[in-house]
Amino acid sequence: MLSCMHEHDGPLTRLRRSHEQAVLELLRRHGPLSRADLSTRSGLSRTTLHDIVAGLVGSGSVVVGTPHVEVRKRGRPVEKLSLNPAAGEAVGIDFARRAVHVAAVNFAHEVIGSASESHPADLNWPERIDLAHRLLATLAAGPAADDRRDGAVHLDALSAIGVGVVGPLTDPGSEKAHAQAIDGLPDLLRKRFGVPVLLDNNTRLAALAEAVWGAAADSSDVLYLRLSHGVGGGLVVGGALHRGRNGLSGEFGHITVDPAGRPCDCGGTGCLETRASLDAVLYRYRESGGRAGDLAGFLSAAADGERPALDVLERVGSDVGGVLAAVCQAVGPGVVVIGGELAAAGPALLEPVERALRQQLMPLARHHVDVRRATLGEAGSALGGIALVLHESPLLSHYPQPVTEENA
Amino acid sequence: MLSCMHEHDGPLTRLRRSHEQAVLELLRRHGPLSRADLSTRSGLSRTTLHDIVAGLVGSGSVVVGTPHVEVRKRGRPVEKLSLNPAAGEAVGIDFARRAVHVAAVNFAHEVIGSASESHPADLNWPERIDLAHRLLATLAAGPAADDRRDGAVHLDALSAIGVGVVGPLTDPGSEKAHAQAIDGLPDLLRKRFGVPVLLDNNTRLAALAEAVWGAAADSSDVLYLRLSHGVGGGLVVGGALHRGRNGLSGEFGHITVDPAGRPCDCGGTGCLETRASLDAVLYRYRESGGRAGDLAGFLSAAADGERPALDVLERVGSDVGGVLAAVCQAVGPGVVVIGGELAAAGPALLEPVERALRQQLMPLARHHVDVRRATLGEAGSALGGIALVLHESPLLSHYPQPVTEENA
Repeated sequence: MLSCMHEHDGPLTRLRRSHEQAVLELLRRHGPLSRADLSTRSGLSRTTLHDIVAGLVGSGSVVVGTPHVEVRKRGRPVEKLSLNPAAGEAVGIDFARRAVHVAAVNFAHEVIGSASESHPADLNWPERIDLAHRLLATLAAGPAADDRRDGAVHLDALSAIGVGVVGPLTDPGSEKAHAQAIDGLPDLLRKRFGVPVLLDNNTRLAALAEAVWGAAADSSDVLYLRLSHGVGGGLVVGGALHRGRNGLSGEFGHITVDPAGRPCDCGGTGCLETRASLDAVLYRYRESGGRAGDLAGFLSAAADGERPALDVLERVGSDVGGVLAAVCQAVGPGVVVIGGELAAAGPALLEPVERALRQQLMPLARHHVDVRRATLGEAGSALGGIALVLHESPLLSHYPQPVTEENA
Repeated sequence: MLSCMHEHDGPLTRLRRSHEQAVLELLRRHGPLSRADLSTRSGLSRTTLHDIVAGLVGSGSVVVGTPHVEVRKRGRPVEKLSLNPAAGEAVGIDFARRAVHVAAVNFAHEVIGSASESHPADLNWPERIDLAHRLLATLAAGPAADDRRDGAVHLDALSAIGVGVVGPLTDPGSEKAHAQAIDGLPDLLRKRFGVPVLLDNNTRLAALAEAVWGAAADSSDVLYLRLSHGVGGGLVVGGALHRGRNGLSGEFGHITVDPAGRPCDCGGTGCLETRASLDAVLYRYRESGGRAGDLAGFLSAAADGERPALDVLERVGSDVGGVLAAVCQAVGPGVVVIGGELAAAGPALLEPVERALRQQLMPLARHHVDVRRATLGEAGSALGGIALVLHESPLLSHYPQPVTEENA
């Protein structure tokens, strides 16, 4: 059912899509309408309207019924058209390194549930997809389903799946093994779920989710940074996910902090990731005489005010703030959101980040950006997959946009 | 005549605009058409079409004529509608620090001329506007006008003016003096030219112009850096100028290169501008034992292969490349364009820039960006003003988009 919008479609294709969107919007706003009503309200001719409606019925987006029979002069009941209540459901899946996360929304675009399960890092793709399918089935059967108007999550009525995966998604033909593995993934998913699949980097999807449902739901220009085993992020520009040419954007973790620094897994030198990944932070912490051996211990030590832990967070925050300042000068986001496991350190991390950020921003810009902690947790990327579907599907692209100053 | 598109307009306003665009696109593509033809080709009902056409005629975008009289059964001649050939003209003005640049396009969106004149830095706004008006009048009377199909540039038929000004444009109410001065500028321009005015930072406009007509006309994701008395730039994202929240984007010159460096005019410390502005470059050059006293002498020394000049360009290029790498990691543009007076140094500057850029990009991204020298020169920002009008006006937004991989 899903056919994504493309900026460079011809004007007449765009015109047809705008007609489809207008019809869907009228049905969304007014409920069931007759073809005559739709024609009047949309300004489309009968012929055009019939053509557009036929396409929407054919795709399953619109259903024909006579819920409130009216009798016209000649005695024939008036057919009413309405949105297919089963058609708007969307699912997000996040294939993280060692876990699968899923989430689903109903037709009202309410999140009806999410689920997660860990797995070994070497689990193969068919087994990961099986796991995702099983997790989604638990949502369909789960207690949350009882509250829904139409009774159950119809996985067989999904319009599309938004999927997050680890690592940058570059051109097909890249020599990176994970990119090759991912080449076959959309096909596997399409075969299993029978619907179109939209794929993006899972950290970028977390950025989109924070801008739609999370810490930056009031802003349409958002910089999201995730501090985890890797350091990455994403940009939301004007309410839409920014991908960049060849998908290589939001790679904040590979911005150079120290050209003479340590080698990074990306092949570069002195990247932010070599200073701010979980491993790098724990390494710095142990070098500073910290006692705790793992992240939980480190976070607990920081919460207790242990000096080596706080010092390390201060230094990490300073590095992170400097990189964020450079990106903010270039992009000018309204909100910076910090997520990932390290964000659990709270103000002990965020305050140094904000201090370094503001200090390195030009004075004119210093008070035009907020720094906030991410709110969506581990379900963020799966929710971002849903947001991707909602934003890119012509059926669903009227999903409420993040509030901006203009429409607040 | 101009009414800008707003992302957050309601769906029915958007629908009306898409109808207007469809009608204008059909007239642009097919030439004069009757209302009946327009109705058939657009799919709009007669009622809607008449309403849309009435609005377009009222705004002056469309004219009614009977260029090829056809006689219908009842003997009444068929009115043909066509685009108003005088209505589509747009003008760009760049109010630089010490000069005014203007440029104009005809209805076919061909640049018919540009003109410039220097002035003292303290010239007041009414006098600058007079100067712009006089320069535009020379275009209207100039030899270029003879080549045009309709004979003369009708300044009184302008649809809009795109204007570039120096400095960041932040919220009204900012305490910066130049922002206050600019508050009254749109009114002064509107009074003088009698048409809507679109205002933006002139360096950002140069970025847009390079992406539409210049060095990056084949790319829709462009990073433009200007190395001049100040250091600034702009981002074109998906073929559109990226402004950022509160207009504070593209400020590459105020990205920190050395937190312990020299104070910058922006109030910050160690910004790229303190190392790569013309003054900073000439200062470094003289400190290195360079003999030439001004930019022309410096550029000439570099062209002659003088060691101190080349060393300075190497160091500036390294600083610039490092900042560009950080922004490219975040934004992922396909093309980086370097403009401003220092770009005249050519490969002696651009090669070190590119070397540092690639060295600090993550290996996966190294070959996904081109570095090019700007091609539009001092008229760039005025041309960008035109591009702004062409992109933001519903009348003109079908101006050919930059070619991308999808539509190449």
